[in-house]
Amino acid sequence: MARERRGGNTPLPFNNVKIEDSFWSAKIQANLERTIPNQYGKLVETGIIEALRGNWESGMPLEPHIFRDSDLAKWVEGASYTIAILPDPKIEKLLDEVVDLIVASQQPDGYLNTHYTLVEPDKRWTNLRDQHELYCAGHLMEAAVAHYRATGKRKLLDCLCRYADHIDSVFGAEPGKKRGYCGHEEIELALVKLYEATGNERYLKLSAYFIDERGQKPHYYDQEAIDRGEDPEKYWAGANYEYMQAQIPVRDLEIVSGHAVRAMYLVAAMADLADLNKDETLVKTLERLWDQLVSKRMYITAGIGPSGRNEGFTTDYDLPNETAYSETCAAIGMVLWAHRMLRFDLDSKYGDVMERALYNGIISGVSLDGTKYFYQNPLGSLAKHHRTEWFDCSCCPTNIVRLIPSLGGYVYAASDKDAIVHLYVQGEGRMAVAGKAVTLKQETNFPWDGDVRVSVGVDEAAKFGICLRIPSWCKNASAKVNGEGVDMSANVCKGYLRIEREWKNGDVIELALPMTVRRIYAHPEAPQDAGRVAIQRGPMVYCFEEIDNPVSPHKIVLPESAALEAKFEPDLLGGVITLTGEALCLDDSGWEGKLYGDFAPATKPCTVKAIPYYAWDNRDACRMNMWVINKP
Amino acid sequence: MARERRGGNTPLPFNNVKIEDSFWSAKIQANLERTIPNQYGKLVETGIIEALRGNWESGMPLEPHIFRDSDLAKWVEGASYTIAILPDPKIEKLLDEVVDLIVASQQPDGYLNTHYTLVEPDKRWTNLRDQHELYCAGHLMEAAVAHYRATGKRKLLDCLCRYADHIDSVFGAEPGKKRGYCGHEEIELALVKLYEATGNERYLKLSAYFIDERGQKPHYYDQEAIDRGEDPEKYWAGANYEYMQAQIPVRDLEIVSGHAVRAMYLVAAMADLADLNKDETLVKTLERLWDQLVSKRMYITAGIGPSGRNEGFTTDYDLPNETAYSETCAAIGMVLWAHRMLRFDLDSKYGDVMERALYNGIISGVSLDGTKYFYQNPLGSLAKHHRTEWFDCSCCPTNIVRLIPSLGGYVYAASDKDAIVHLYVQGEGRMAVAGKAVTLKQETNFPWDGDVRVSVGVDEAAKFGICLRIPSWCKNASAKVNGEGVDMSANVCKGYLRIEREWKNGDVIELALPMTVRRIYAHPEAPQDAGRVAIQRGPMVYCFEEIDNPVSPHKIVLPESAALEAKFEPDLLGGVITLTGEALCLDDSGWEGKLYGDFAPATKPCTVKAIPYYAWDNRDACRMNMWVINKP
Repeated sequence: MARERRGGNTPLPFNNVKIEDSFWSAKIQANLERTIPNQYGKLVETGIIEALRGNWESGMPLEPHIFRDSDLAKWVEGASYTIAILPDPKIEKLLDEVVDLIVASQQPDGYLNTHYTLVEPDKRWTNLRDQHELYCAGHLMEAAVAHYRATGKRKLLDCLCRYADHIDSVFGAEPGKKRGYCGHEEIELALVKLYEATGNERYLKLSAYFIDERGQKPHYYDQEAIDRGEDPEKYWAGANYEYMQAQIPVRDLEIVSGHAVRAMYLVAAMADLADLNKDETLVKTLERLWDQLVSKRMYITAGIGPSGRNEGFTTDYDLPNETAYSETCAAIGMVLWAHRMLRFDLDSKYGDVMERALYNGIISGVSLDGTKYFYQNPLGSLAKHHRTEWFDCSCCPTNIVRLIPSLGGYVYAASDKDAIVHLYVQGEGRMAVAGKAVTLKQETNFPWDGDVRVSVGVDEAAKFGICLRIPSWCKNASAKVNGEGVDMSANVCKGYLRIEREWKNGDVIELALPMTVRRIYAHPEAPQDAGRVAIQRGPMVYCFEEIDNPVSPHKIVLPESAALEAKFEPDLLGGVITLTGEALCLDDSGWEGKLYGDFAPATKPCTVKAIPYYAWDNRDACRMNMWVINKP
Repeated sequence: MARERRGGNTPLPFNNVKIEDSFWSAKIQANLERTIPNQYGKLVETGIIEALRGNWESGMPLEPHIFRDSDLAKWVEGASYTIAILPDPKIEKLLDEVVDLIVASQQPDGYLNTHYTLVEPDKRWTNLRDQHELYCAGHLMEAAVAHYRATGKRKLLDCLCRYADHIDSVFGAEPGKKRGYCGHEEIELALVKLYEATGNERYLKLSAYFIDERGQKPHYYDQEAIDRGEDPEKYWAGANYEYMQAQIPVRDLEIVSGHAVRAMYLVAAMADLADLNKDETLVKTLERLWDQLVSKRMYITAGIGPSGRNEGFTTDYDLPNETAYSETCAAIGMVLWAHRMLRFDLDSKYGDVMERALYNGIISGVSLDGTKYFYQNPLGSLAKHHRTEWFDCSCCPTNIVRLIPSLGGYVYAASDKDAIVHLYVQGEGRMAVAGKAVTLKQETNFPWDGDVRVSVGVDEAAKFGICLRIPSWCKNASAKVNGEGVDMSANVCKGYLRIEREWKNGDVIELALPMTVRRIYAHPEAPQDAGRVAIQRGPMVYCFEEIDNPVSPHKIVLPESAALEAKFEPDLLGGVITLTGEALCLDDSGWEGKLYGDFAPATKPCTVKAIPYYAWDNRDACRMNMWVINKP
């Protein structure tokens, strides 16, 4: 029997959702046609496939890396989501082969890790702090659940259950078990997925143990270091337990800090447990952390973690643009967290960030053709950035390969009372509301246009609510049901329009979310954006690339009076709405031969053109600027 | 017999110059009282003293580092300059002891290097590209010349001549010699000093060889790597021969690029050779490189090398502020180069940069009390920077310890026809002009006030010129001789006022260089300063520290109409002129709880106060901003 949750709504599984739009469909197709095969080739090159076969011995090249299993696992996860919605026998066969190899590499006691099995067989579980051992296990669990959900095949799921059982026998608060937890969070949320797929409460309990144990004193990592003969004080420069959110127990956290991806995987699991265990102390912690992060430490792209030094957070309002780290994985982590918050608190502040991340800080991480990636996602560039095909640490590409085809899972949710639409994507979602089958069909040209027609499909008329997120970027949303206006002020609660009535088959909601070109400013405490303005239209933040503009985009001055015209350009960057208008730019006249002078550079008229941020760097590397000079 | 040089002027030796002001005297005193003893203590801690004694064996801690000899050498050089002007028997005795140790560590064949002698005795001269072997030799030569000039003692000089002779026997274009040169330039300018101290032309020739050989093909570093069994293609990521200015022969260089300190030591040596060898191809190259650097790649502080990645240059106009590397050593290198250019081309464009570096980008590198250092000299800070007592690589502190007491050497020069004043520093310089003794005595409160009274001392009346640099920051300079006005327009050539007449003992020149508060703007191509303004008064660039201002200094908006009042504050930061006035600042009102919004932050009146940049971070670490928001 399913647990009673804190929140009443459950997201629709990704494979209950059809995506039939022009925007995401193209990305999912590119993921199938290019990303999945390309990444498989790269993974083969890293040696992970041969390592699974046991074909590696000391002294050979391509020593199995401590986190290589996770790369493969994320690829399995992404390929599984993909074939569930775009069946592809070739990929399915390849997946079966990979699954067979993974399962065959499992040790008799259930243990499963190529690095430790081949490279350091006597050092299992001796360095949880640094070695990503439980992290890899977590990604394998997520892969197993995805493969099972996509194909119905239990082989990998059963294998990972055996591994989870083994882990459960090693870790826990019970006497005789290690009281450890992973330096890189991940297994916590994976165990929740394993619980949801199997109903085995032990996995949920183990996840809660890992969360509860984190940051307790005496500190496990101190003891573990001493056991290795190391001085825990001499941990690597710049890092400390805050780096991995283990400086204090998680319920005492006041701010999101340290390594950004780790932090996101932690709070995502905390949100799962808050919901499933109705854990109000976790709820309070998460609400505090969310508000602090979103109001002080998040880029306008929903990217997070400005610094490369710790791949993470620095101080409030420190949001450098050109040197932004803003790792793709971290923006994906924002979606994981936001989506889980929506399960127990239907508030558009979460849905808005989820949308912001999806249309900006995440998809900027992959080229339009699905073959090249950013690890860092800067918000300005002096042409020093350019996507590449792979990284030594390729967590971001393999996070992209699983995020894109799982998009459907973020669009809808359902509860006993409501059918919920978080995101506007043409297609449909099939759900059960109070035990009755409901289909919502969206027709829209989102994200380029904010008109959404939602058609209701029910077998028989039924009374329930339909909840539609009203994005915070839209100040004048309106809606009609079967042509009749809806009173927005009476029916919008926490950013969701809820229309309760007896819905009949074929009823139509017409939601209008006018997309205007908006000037966005940052809080005055944010040093790097002071005196600057950014442009947003609908969910998309825009940027200026040098190639589209007559001057280096750092020279653009945008007067408040400048009107920018939105125009769909079908042949540009896969088809985007560009924003064009008359602005100003700094003028080089009089500056020949000198670097400093005693008059402010003049400005002159200049026609500028902005493109959606996500689409930048899909041509030659060139300069890019998002936060241009504001002119009041 | 001295060589005939290209230029006619020669700088006065530092010990022919008295400094009797309040500004530099305090720094020289702090250098004697604190910097020299403190640094000696730090050097002892690094193990270099014990290494010189031969008290190191494999497996012991404190393995002699490849560039540790250079740290000690620069300390010897700085201590020598200091005791020459501020005699101190205790430091002189310590110097003698250190000199004895250095000399005793010399090998029978003249070789002298603690790392190679103790750690890798069979690997001498096998990796010139990376190992700083000739670089260390160069610094020891500079130390030896300084010790000799300061004390008259030849022991270290003779020792280094033996080492130079050894090096000359190993390197050169002659058959049987290695055609190598050092990855880190330094020995080239040191050999010129050794030549000047000894008159031995072989040292000058060896210096010219190193310069001429640099970047020739087949590439020495390729062959050297192959000889070590390495693949020259697999040189470390991000570096290449341009990093060390060895990508092409030096006369073909079009831009200054790569590692900034290396580049400066190279061009300094090239300027020496251009002058001494009347080498017009070098002159042309240097003029090209100078103009390119100063007009496109130099911070307003005369700091250079914006990037930490290569400790050096990136692209034209790329001058990030908070992440500026702008190593102290590189600004010192600018002085070395500028000063040498003045020897053969008396143009204030060189003197101006020398002054700019001395009062800004160099002395920002050491705390007012002479005990703490910056390696990087950012032009903005979010309170993440703070001076420290030492670095693993302490090239900058040991460059400071030698620069400060050598200041006198940069103030004056003399030729057959002219007595020349490059810098305004209260005190006097004794020189010979056309064989006659001339003393120029400066009375001034520079750098806080631009009135300079120059008294002429001659044994008998004589006709010659006195040249005074008219700084480019001064737009309305005027001068009087014995109370009578001088026609500036007729007598200023290339930024030097030249007054030729029959000078009598006691003649007085009154030079007035009014110091106004100036607003400085950067070339519109410089992205990081776009829309920004900086403040300069006299030679000094100013900055805003949070501690002196009611708001974080990134929020300061400086309207063009804002009047800033200069006021000497004797108790602040050792006595500085601050600039105070009514400006604006960004207002947080209406921004509670949100990070992004759709209205530009308002501004409100705000009294702001700026301090000279060099004096920043002498209190608690706090935010600092130099380029504030401009309001036309």
